[in-house]
Amino acid sequence: MENLSVVLYKRREEKPKCDIVLENRPIKEPGEGEVVIRMHSVGICGSDVHYWINGRIGDFVVDDPMVIGHEASGTVEKCGKNVSHLKPGDRVAIEPGYPLVNDDFSKSGRYNLSPVYFCATPPDHGNLQRFYTHNADYCFKLPDNVTFEEGALIEPLSVGIHACRRAGIDLGQKVLICGAGPIGLVSLIIAKAMGAASVVITDLFENRLEKAKELGADFTIQIVRGESPQDTAKRIEKVLGGMPDRTIECTGAESAIQTGIYATKSGGCLLLVGMGPEKVSVPLVNAAVREVDIKGVFRYCNTWPTAISMLASGQINVKPLVTHRFPIEKSQEAFEHTRDSKGIKVMLKCDPNDQNP
Amino acid sequence: MENLSVVLYKRREEKPKCDIVLENRPIKEPGEGEVVIRMHSVGICGSDVHYWINGRIGDFVVDDPMVIGHEASGTVEKCGKNVSHLKPGDRVAIEPGYPLVNDDFSKSGRYNLSPVYFCATPPDHGNLQRFYTHNADYCFKLPDNVTFEEGALIEPLSVGIHACRRAGIDLGQKVLICGAGPIGLVSLIIAKAMGAASVVITDLFENRLEKAKELGADFTIQIVRGESPQDTAKRIEKVLGGMPDRTIECTGAESAIQTGIYATKSGGCLLLVGMGPEKVSVPLVNAAVREVDIKGVFRYCNTWPTAISMLASGQINVKPLVTHRFPIEKSQEAFEHTRDSKGIKVMLKCDPNDQNP
Amino acid sequence: MENLSVVLYKRREEKPKCDIVLENRPIKEPGEGEVVIRMHSVGICGSDVHYWINGRIGDFVVDDPMVIGHEASGTVEKCGKNVSHLKPGDRVAIEPGYPLVNDDFSKSGRYNLSPVYFCATPPDHGNLQRFYTHNADYCFKLPDNVTFEEGALIEPLSVGIHACRRAGIDLGQKVLICGAGPIGLVSLIIAKAMGAASVVITDLFENRLEKAKELGADFTIQIVRGESPQDTAKRIEKVLGGMPDRTIECTGAESAIQTGIYATKSGGCLLLVGMGPEKVSVPLVNAAVREVDIKGVFRYCNTWPTAISMLASGQINVKPLVTHRFPIEKSQEAFEHTRDSKGIKVMLKCDPNDQNP
Amino acid sequence: MENLSVVLYKRREEKPKCDIVLENRPIKEPGEGEVVIRMHSVGICGSDVHYWINGRIGDFVVDDPMVIGHEASGTVEKCGKNVSHLKPGDRVAIEPGYPLVNDDFSKSGRYNLSPVYFCATPPDHGNLQRFYTHNADYCFKLPDNVTFEEGALIEPLSVGIHACRRAGIDLGQKVLICGAGPIGLVSLIIAKAMGAASVVITDLFENRLEKAKELGADFTIQIVRGESPQDTAKRIEKVLGGMPDRTIECTGAESAIQTGIYATKSGGCLLLVGMGPEKVSVPLVNAAVREVDIKGVFRYCNTWPTAISMLASGQINVKPLVTHRFPIEKSQEAFEHTRDSKGIKVMLKCDPNDQNP
Repeated sequence: MENLSVVLYKRREEKPKCDIVLENRPIKEPGEGEVVIRMHSVGICGSDVHYWINGRIGDFVVDDPMVIGHEASGTVEKCGKNVSHLKPGDRVAIEPGYPLVNDDFSKSGRYNLSPVYFCATPPDHGNLQRFYTHNADYCFKLPDNVTFEEGALIEPLSVGIHACRRAGIDLGQKVLICGAGPIGLVSLIIAKAMGAASVVITDLFENRLEKAKELGADFTIQIVRGESPQDTAKRIEKVLGGMPDRTIECTGAESAIQTGIYATKSGGCLLLVGMGPEKVSVPLVNAAVREVDIKGVFRYCNTWPTAISMLASGQINVKPLVTHRFPIEKSQEAFEHTRDSKGIKVMLKCDPNDQNP
Repeated sequence: MENLSVVLYKRREEKPKCDIVLENRPIKEPGEGEVVIRMHSVGICGSDVHYWINGRIGDFVVDDPMVIGHEASGTVEKCGKNVSHLKPGDRVAIEPGYPLVNDDFSKSGRYNLSPVYFCATPPDHGNLQRFYTHNADYCFKLPDNVTFEEGALIEPLSVGIHACRRAGIDLGQKVLICGAGPIGLVSLIIAKAMGAASVVITDLFENRLEKAKELGADFTIQIVRGESPQDTAKRIEKVLGGMPDRTIECTGAESAIQTGIYATKSGGCLLLVGMGPEKVSVPLVNAAVREVDIKGVFRYCNTWPTAISMLASGQINVKPLVTHRFPIEKSQEAFEHTRDSKGIKVMLKCDPNDQNP
Repeated sequence: MENLSVVLYKRREEKPKCDIVLENRPIKEPGEGEVVIRMHSVGICGSDVHYWINGRIGDFVVDDPMVIGHEASGTVEKCGKNVSHLKPGDRVAIEPGYPLVNDDFSKSGRYNLSPVYFCATPPDHGNLQRFYTHNADYCFKLPDNVTFEEGALIEPLSVGIHACRRAGIDLGQKVLICGAGPIGLVSLIIAKAMGAASVVITDLFENRLEKAKELGADFTIQIVRGESPQDTAKRIEKVLGGMPDRTIECTGAESAIQTGIYATKSGGCLLLVGMGPEKVSVPLVNAAVREVDIKGVFRYCNTWPTAISMLASGQINVKPLVTHRFPIEKSQEAFEHTRDSKGIKVMLKCDPNDQNP
Repeated sequence: MENLSVVLYKRREEKPKCDIVLENRPIKEPGEGEVVIRMHSVGICGSDVHYWINGRIGDFVVDDPMVIGHEASGTVEKCGKNVSHLKPGDRVAIEPGYPLVNDDFSKSGRYNLSPVYFCATPPDHGNLQRFYTHNADYCFKLPDNVTFEEGALIEPLSVGIHACRRAGIDLGQKVLICGAGPIGLVSLIIAKAMGAASVVITDLFENRLEKAKELGADFTIQIVRGESPQDTAKRIEKVLGGMPDRTIECTGAESAIQTGIYATKSGGCLLLVGMGPEKVSVPLVNAAVREVDIKGVFRYCNTWPTAISMLASGQINVKPLVTHRFPIEKSQEAFEHTRDSKGIKVMLKCDPNDQNP
């Protein structure tokens, strides 16, 4: 059976360091507890583009050819031994990471901190292909009223869920979100769904802030380069009518982290999602003596069932996040769109017979 | 200044044991940290009616005449010494209970468990009158876009907030609410606002279930007298597509508590709001070995600021709860309406010059 | 290789319904992720005796012959494929239960609520034999300074750890423990280790209370049959100089549960470990309006690493719990000792070449 | 009545900027809810010395003469109106800070984040004098078996309690404490009391580490100037046999904070007690992606009752912390001792008729 796959090959030292190659690859037979999935929709993430351009993220280097893609959904094609909760024909969303060992982290509910398999993180392959084989325990059946694209969007949504959970978003809170990219936007959606009363979102670009408004932001603030973090914090307080109880920092910029510290209300939490430079200079003592907790996230855990419940009940709407669609054959073009920040989320359609959402 | 007040006088042994008397009472001068409030809207609660009919609730007995009313809002008329966060003309919602001592409970954030002053609980007077004097720290300024009636509704809403917080309502959960009276309905509103994905509400009466549907219940179940708690639990599981993660029990009935235990998912929580008989026979071992926590609530604490934020941002809508309005002069009629379960919430209007919502 | 095993055979309707049979059984070859363990010490639990006498516990019936024993330690004899954290010669403590599926419970850290394999619970065999094969992820390496018997005692200790964690035992608290049997005693040890300031323990029998005193109980109270739960609660408050913040109920008796509710301080927690009748009559409203949470436990999870750390550092001492030792060949006699409540914990020694602690 | 008091007068620009002056001051009459205390023992804190030498701590400047001292205990001499829980003759420990307003922080149990009165923080006077008048709600009766000096030590002990609580110290954990000064030592005592299995403490000075050993540290590590934080982290991991679950940083040094981040186990917590420079350069991304939470503390709240329970039950022993005693008349000498880091804790004795511990 044909298995067209989108593979990164590291080819040169100048950027983009990798080529995006379409090739037919063998379909991996399902082992015990695995399923083969006929892929339907795969979203492109900033990290996918980063691997393409730079050939690496931190210590993870694309040495060998790697299938890309990790925001995905499809239909179960075949079940391996001992798979009882899924059967061929089931529509599923795929959680791209799962623990490789049953250690203290995974036993205590934080399996994202265990050594993991993770789609499209070297040396593990991703799932932007016609057929992909995955751990069945990390494939989640989609109800009929949840589309494949919503299923694929559960991956970025999970970042928002995990971030908002760790931040302790609660009923009636004021929330600051720094950065109106895809992660800022899903954090916005989830923060409101968890009961945040008012959310202000910041960004450098007006068009991204407009999208945030459409998706429910109560207020937006355009960041002015060169403004001091303290001054930005004051603008935030003014617009919210008080300091934010929680801040979700999605940019990784040192200045945004500083703003997050100055802005957040005493006793609150600054949650770091954005990845910045290895070291940053921050007013830690300001946070410490005001008991503003600084927390980070590593991907997510236990989010797929939650996201599916919210999508199925119609409590949240993520459909407006998808702004472009391409067949898998046009992956090169799709990656260029994401690289050029056109729209929000680009979806690749893997099934030649079904290119619907 | 005239201060028309609605006072319960215990007069006889047959029911209603009290008379509802309208009389002019002196306005209490504000002490240090107190404010006099020109009352605007006061909702009638089931407990108010209970005092009227029975002359007592448990150990709290109406021995001396008592001004009734505790779901209230109004306008600051006069400030006592050392009141800095309020000024005459401020529109406020009144939290009817506050701690009388600064003990370990109040110091650690659970002031509802301290000895308290509580409006319209003997021997403390309520606030169904023209002018009422209260602890300023427990009067909360209303934003312009929150009406007086919304302000008065914060009291029942607070029961829902405290219950949902203690139950640990969280994103994506399935929730069962037993009883579609006012407390069941506010719990429904809050559970959805905190991220519950699907809520089923039960009641004996179809018309109450219809109101719940209007207010956002995903499912309703009419209770059949005589059905076993286990069978009711099965119906609940079926309609929700799984056992509820959390149950908010608002009836106090032994059978409903039993149903709540059988219905709630392992690892979940059964939250008791309804007050039933002193002792009940329950399958405690079933709850214990499935780690279903059984918790209760005593009124609420720290809910007014939360409720005001939610109302001001438009995240929740409680206006449909008010079904009847009467001027304070027709309090007798208003109490009869509540006694006869006509509508949901009856509002009494205390200000002769402003009977608006 | 010889594999002497202690097996329950259900033989008759009168009690004891089972015979304790010593027989040689084949050694199970280790599958992937499994290890064969040369058993050293196995403690006898009340539940083991209950199976022997009654042939069942609740819905778990000894239909087929079943190897008994689940409080155990030994030495790794052989490793199956893909076992990397253990090697032959490692001394290990065995966690008798592990999840059979990777469901939402196990993914979120509560694997005790998943369907489990559990030693000596029909239809699963126990480990009172010369050689036993188990899931390697649930075998924990013992440091050199922790004895095999301490390793075996981690099982009852885990009940205490899980109970005290769920009860939220915290620095400076007053704690009531109902019942001075093995579970009451381990709860006492753990409560003190978690920072409880003063612990009172109750029992019907003076000799058990004396043992509790030796193990660190600050106070003991002998229960008087027929005393009202309210009166017992008053005695507890008097002796502690205040109501207990937490109560660990280890008897299952209805009167003790009632005492636990009346005795526990507002805002506290009553934790149920003891298993009583299916339904009990309790003053639930008293607990509810004082916000006394009622919680239960199902076995334990994530306790072995904690217990090993505490034993290795010498922070707790469980050695005095072992009062009798028998070679596995004298299992019948050992079971009779436990049935007759002689001493606290009886240890069976499985290794003919090493009968040391 | 004579009221000898120790007062800082800011006199010059070179250090010490203040003079330590003994003078007789009027005794403040107790207002409503206040008590006059005949002072007994007052410990000297590093911050007291800092005010003496530098005339300020951050924004708090000694402009007007200020009575120094805030680690204190004594005997109630006189009660103001409405004091019911204390009476003359009661021995009490004094919590030096209390909220000045009843705002959201104090209502929700975090009164340390409210605007506070705080002894010996400008413009508030301390209590190193013969007689001192304080808010009775923040004076706690000492049981007979707790000495005055133990009572005075509750203040530094409270820093350790609040830090360990916020860090989430739990049963069986490995803990790193950076800095073996008084705060490091009380954190050590509390961490062990809360169930930490093994604690390693670091310091530059061998003699301080020896004291830590005496007080229960399982391991000590001498810090080598110039060693990289990563290398120090590796030494810590080696000595503990694993990375610490929690780190309590008591030095404020940038290098120690960096070490704390590198050293702490994924999913753990780095708790900052030490106050360092306004901005520090730290590997925040390392903490974030390993979900190591970074938290700080502002003094403490709700710690006195806890500390008294622990001292009364003998669960902790703080007596070895007191190494020197001086009568209040020799305050100058006592301050010099603390400045010169002689011993651990210097106690000043305020009562000419009782200079006992």
